[in-house]
Amino acid sequence: MGFFKIIKKDARSQARTGLLKLGKISVDTPVFMPVGTKATVKALTAHQLYDMGCKIILGNLYHLYLQPGIEIIKKAGGLHRFMHWDYNILTDSGGFQVFSLGDIRKVKDEGVEFKSVIDGSRHFFSPEKVIEMQSDLGSDIMMVLDECIPYTEDLRYTQDAAKRTLDWAQTSIKAKNKITSKGALFGIVQGGFIRQVRKFCAQSISEMDFEGIAIGGLSVGEDRGTTMEILAYTLDYIDRKKPIYFMGLGDPLGLMEAVQCGVDMFDCVLPTRISRNGSAFTDFGKINIKNSGYGDDFRPLSSSCGCYACKHYSRAYIRHLYKSNEILASILLSVHNVYFLFDLLNRAKEAIRADGFSQFHRRFVHHYTNG
Amino acid sequence: MGFFKIIKKDARSQARTGLLKLGKISVDTPVFMPVGTKATVKALTAHQLYDMGCKIILGNLYHLYLQPGIEIIKKAGGLHRFMHWDYNILTDSGGFQVFSLGDIRKVKDEGVEFKSVIDGSRHFFSPEKVIEMQSDLGSDIMMVLDECIPYTEDLRYTQDAAKRTLDWAQTSIKAKNKITSKGALFGIVQGGFIRQVRKFCAQSISEMDFEGIAIGGLSVGEDRGTTMEILAYTLDYIDRKKPIYFMGLGDPLGLMEAVQCGVDMFDCVLPTRISRNGSAFTDFGKINIKNSGYGDDFRPLSSSCGCYACKHYSRAYIRHLYKSNEILASILLSVHNVYFLFDLLNRAKEAIRADGFSQFHRRFVHHYTNG
Repeated sequence: MGFFKIIKKDARSQARTGLLKLGKISVDTPVFMPVGTKATVKALTAHQLYDMGCKIILGNLYHLYLQPGIEIIKKAGGLHRFMHWDYNILTDSGGFQVFSLGDIRKVKDEGVEFKSVIDGSRHFFSPEKVIEMQSDLGSDIMMVLDECIPYTEDLRYTQDAAKRTLDWAQTSIKAKNKITSKGALFGIVQGGFIRQVRKFCAQSISEMDFEGIAIGGLSVGEDRGTTMEILAYTLDYIDRKKPIYFMGLGDPLGLMEAVQCGVDMFDCVLPTRISRNGSAFTDFGKINIKNSGYGDDFRPLSSSCGCYACKHYSRAYIRHLYKSNEILASILLSVHNVYFLFDLLNRAKEAIRADGFSQFHRRFVHHYTNG
Repeated sequence: MGFFKIIKKDARSQARTGLLKLGKISVDTPVFMPVGTKATVKALTAHQLYDMGCKIILGNLYHLYLQPGIEIIKKAGGLHRFMHWDYNILTDSGGFQVFSLGDIRKVKDEGVEFKSVIDGSRHFFSPEKVIEMQSDLGSDIMMVLDECIPYTEDLRYTQDAAKRTLDWAQTSIKAKNKITSKGALFGIVQGGFIRQVRKFCAQSISEMDFEGIAIGGLSVGEDRGTTMEILAYTLDYIDRKKPIYFMGLGDPLGLMEAVQCGVDMFDCVLPTRISRNGSAFTDFGKINIKNSGYGDDFRPLSSSCGCYACKHYSRAYIRHLYKSNEILASILLSVHNVYFLFDLLNRAKEAIRADGFSQFHRRFVHHYTNG
């Protein structure tokens, strides 16, 4: 088999299960990839992730480039050894981060110039350079440099940016062929919220020699209806034989909708970020542990959850930790929220195998939104 | 056997190994008890502590009384269940904390009145009440209420405070006999830095029916020489058949000196506190991971250490985490520093068994202080 194999298609939706053949260990899809921006999934040890069944995490070239620097990680023997993560790592090129910098970056046809947020020093990312650096990190899946534009851009700029992103995609493939990286390379479909540009990008990226296709530039501030409309439209022009990766989506309802459309891979800082804010996913919606009602609630965060936090600790205890500013609150909530998404996708896979994803999806939405 | 058994005395020092017969699991001494003030050893899960061989931790009545409140913990089924800790818990009475409050507390012969630092509400701790509450928590070792005085107090106040502490000790024993707690009760020797008062306290507490004897009011700001001089002097008047607990000592050199004098039990916030500040114990002294020299140092924190952090992570990585404000830095350093003290005491026990503690001690001090 090749890099990706579709195992089972749901009979009544686009949802599907698949297998990513990756260097370290194969990964079942649909999969949620926890974000380890700075070489750590916030508040979690590698072993807590192993215990949850995590087989792939994200790293971010942009952040690692600034701190501790690519040279240090190379010297350590690559990102896996540096952060003691034996399974797979997908590295983001940093396009999204650089383009979030606003005034302190400048886009050129050859790449993007930006100032370090740490010390103000000037740097330049080109499509070739980000591939080389991701290869230096030892990335299992590398992402091309792309230009991620704001929700509000007009047709002209959207087209210009899309053209650059497509040119960079071509350059990236050439760059990758020049080096000996064992990592896979994914292209990224941009095109803002303008259908004709999205369509052109989706078709162009599909025709190129990428192992997988990412959809970028969505879930950047627009309402959920728009996200899903553009997602579904974009998917119509994507080569569905390849694994499809929705960048930056991580809420349970969003995941389920995208799985229904046929998306295979997800990442998002959401589950770990809301943890540090006291929130927890449950099958009956998100709860916030700060709520005084949980003060003497000795049930687990989620009764049906099998995570370490739910097996051993109560809402009352985690609320106490949170109110006492104890680090363990962030740890336990992070364990729970990441596990919750893993478990949700495992349940989704089961439903797909039984040709019952739509029903599973409807039920999940019903419980999640009606509390 | 009774509550405490001395297993082996070192031939050439007062150092000794022993066994505390506690309800949940027996504990080898000398032992360091990590501090879980607010029902959590900061930054560590229960299982990380189990994995290190931890069999007893501290809880603090004063903090738990204020947040979440004793009623909540009673409702949870006790402190062990609340915080999911299956082994032993020693609870401090809160004397030290209340007496640290300065202006917002008032000592009376019947107990001590104080204002909550959380909401300013008024509270009263009596010797009876702190025993009852520790019993409600399900404490395995309860501490009496004592009056901890500043380093600088004069003879008159030192004597008055000591008298109150001894009266409270008597009251505490009566209070404990009235309830059905299975916990052991430890008396506390106070007496400031005045020899005659220390001696009187040591003798008086030794004559009372306590399962163990704690030495309080040391390591409160005085120099180390004074601490050890008063410690050694105090120990001369203590019933050495009982387990002896030095409250609030946790640096490697201090532990070794006190073990040499015959102390069996220790607690301190130090190992977890310095972790959040980037420091790590090693056999060659304390290092601070912020130091730029560690930027490309791929050795573990301590080469001879078998802790989770040292087995899997490098100084360079932990430095990167620390500089990036990542929670995992605190977690890994806390794992290491607590484990380091456990391991140090295990090595001390081995040396005692081989009648070689003094030599072990000298060597340790030599390496630790010469870097």
